[in-house]
Amino acid sequence: MCQLLGMNCNTPTDICFSFEGFSLRGGRTDDHCDGWGIAFFEGKGCRIFLDAKASVHSPVADLVRRYPIHSTHVIAHIRKATQGDIALQNCHPFQRELWGRYWVFAHNGNLPDFNPANMGFYKAVGDTDSEKAFCIILETLRQRFPEGKPPLKELYSTLSKVTAEIAAQGVFNYLLSDGEHLFAYCSTKLSYIVRQAPFAAAHLIDQDMTVDFRELTSPSDRVAIIATTPLTDNEVWTILEPGQLLVFQDGLPIMSVDRCN
Amino acid sequence: MCQLLGMNCNTPTDICFSFEGFSLRGGRTDDHCDGWGIAFFEGKGCRIFLDAKASVHSPVADLVRRYPIHSTHVIAHIRKATQGDIALQNCHPFQRELWGRYWVFAHNGNLPDFNPANMGFYKAVGDTDSEKAFCIILETLRQRFPEGKPPLKELYSTLSKVTAEIAAQGVFNYLLSDGEHLFAYCSTKLSYIVRQAPFAAAHLIDQDMTVDFRELTSPSDRVAIIATTPLTDNEVWTILEPGQLLVFQDGLPIMSVDRCN
Repeated sequence: MCQLLGMNCNTPTDICFSFEGFSLRGGRTDDHCDGWGIAFFEGKGCRIFLDAKASVHSPVADLVRRYPIHSTHVIAHIRKATQGDIALQNCHPFQRELWGRYWVFAHNGNLPDFNPANMGFYKAVGDTDSEKAFCIILETLRQRFPEGKPPLKELYSTLSKVTAEIAAQGVFNYLLSDGEHLFAYCSTKLSYIVRQAPFAAAHLIDQDMTVDFRELTSPSDRVAIIATTPLTDNEVWTILEPGQLLVFQDGLPIMSVDRCN
Repeated sequence: MCQLLGMNCNTPTDICFSFEGFSLRGGRTDDHCDGWGIAFFEGKGCRIFLDAKASVHSPVADLVRRYPIHSTHVIAHIRKATQGDIALQNCHPFQRELWGRYWVFAHNGNLPDFNPANMGFYKAVGDTDSEKAFCIILETLRQRFPEGKPPLKELYSTLSKVTAEIAAQGVFNYLLSDGEHLFAYCSTKLSYIVRQAPFAAAHLIDQDMTVDFRELTSPSDRVAIIATTPLTDNEVWTILEPGQLLVFQDGLPIMSVDRCN
């Protein structure tokens, strides 16, 4: 199993505070030591930092903790290998291009005996069930919408169906984004919090560290943090229901995708 | 215009020395200030560090200079924008997947009025002629060899043809790799050096810095460095001829691709 961390905001924000706590689970407060990665969208651009080392010992993770990269869509992952060696090609998040946009995916769970017959266009480079599932998701979207990204309602409907099919084969919590929307699927375990005015102080679970967001934010800022388990112990996190697929935009889950265009 | 740096070795090697000199051209010894990037293959895995900042001011470049990542195939780029804004999505190297391998590409030059009609499967995310050319190259290879990576001789032949077609439209020096082969095409300017036993000391052009490779290598090591212009002033670099497409493997250019399988 692994752990997931996601962020979606209405204004580019750094994830240093959340990543500080999260990355400690990669070898100090938890045992997800088999590599890690983090993807930052900046406009249509995307950069992914990966390392097969444990995040607590990775110089790259150290850079991410200290260098505030401002982004609206972030997906991070710390790995505890179930399928595939400890190797760079098996570190999440994975990235592919679809409809002239980068798509990024990270998975927490395990899909035993997941060997889809026809991978179609997208092929996995590494050996994980996770990358195969990502390829199947993109393949399904591309075949269903060959002309380009459809309205959210249609995209959501197709994504829900293919997600349910894959999730039937095991544990399949995931985060998926193209830098415009951020999808969060709960198979067994996922939670989120929305921070917005009036801001308060937050205290990490994994380290005795507090940040007072009143000093760092403007009144219109809104930030959603999504994580396998809550990162702070003095805020109320919302626990997703198994089977729930949320879409985040501008720092909020869109509660009624049916009404979206 | 931009500048290119590539490395291909027979054993995983760090590029810290060459990158030290090269990255100074991104704002100190030269004016390629509009972003930079570097891709490291580690087995089938690949990680790319990108920044839209000048390499001399980028904390990420600072990490790459100081953290020795050992790789057999490296492609780096410093950008001086001709087409496309200064933005992350326009930073090289670009990455896509083909035949279950990652492919990475960086370009030095300019292709004015390059607007290929049908991009096929691969779509550019950013606005550069370079990314479009990369998409056309991969599209051509995929269509010609739908079953998978062909023997090098056949791959080289198809790559040569599509390269010549694109190069007819402007200046098109490039580096391309899938972590197994590294292709270097000279349209106007590209040079390389092979370092092997007996090793000697090398002195950078862009900074008063010397490394004695006798202290850092074993006798069987072999490293090819490819760069837009030579990086050292006490070694003999080979200047490529315009129109030359070299393939590097195990730290050497393969001189007779016709005889390869």
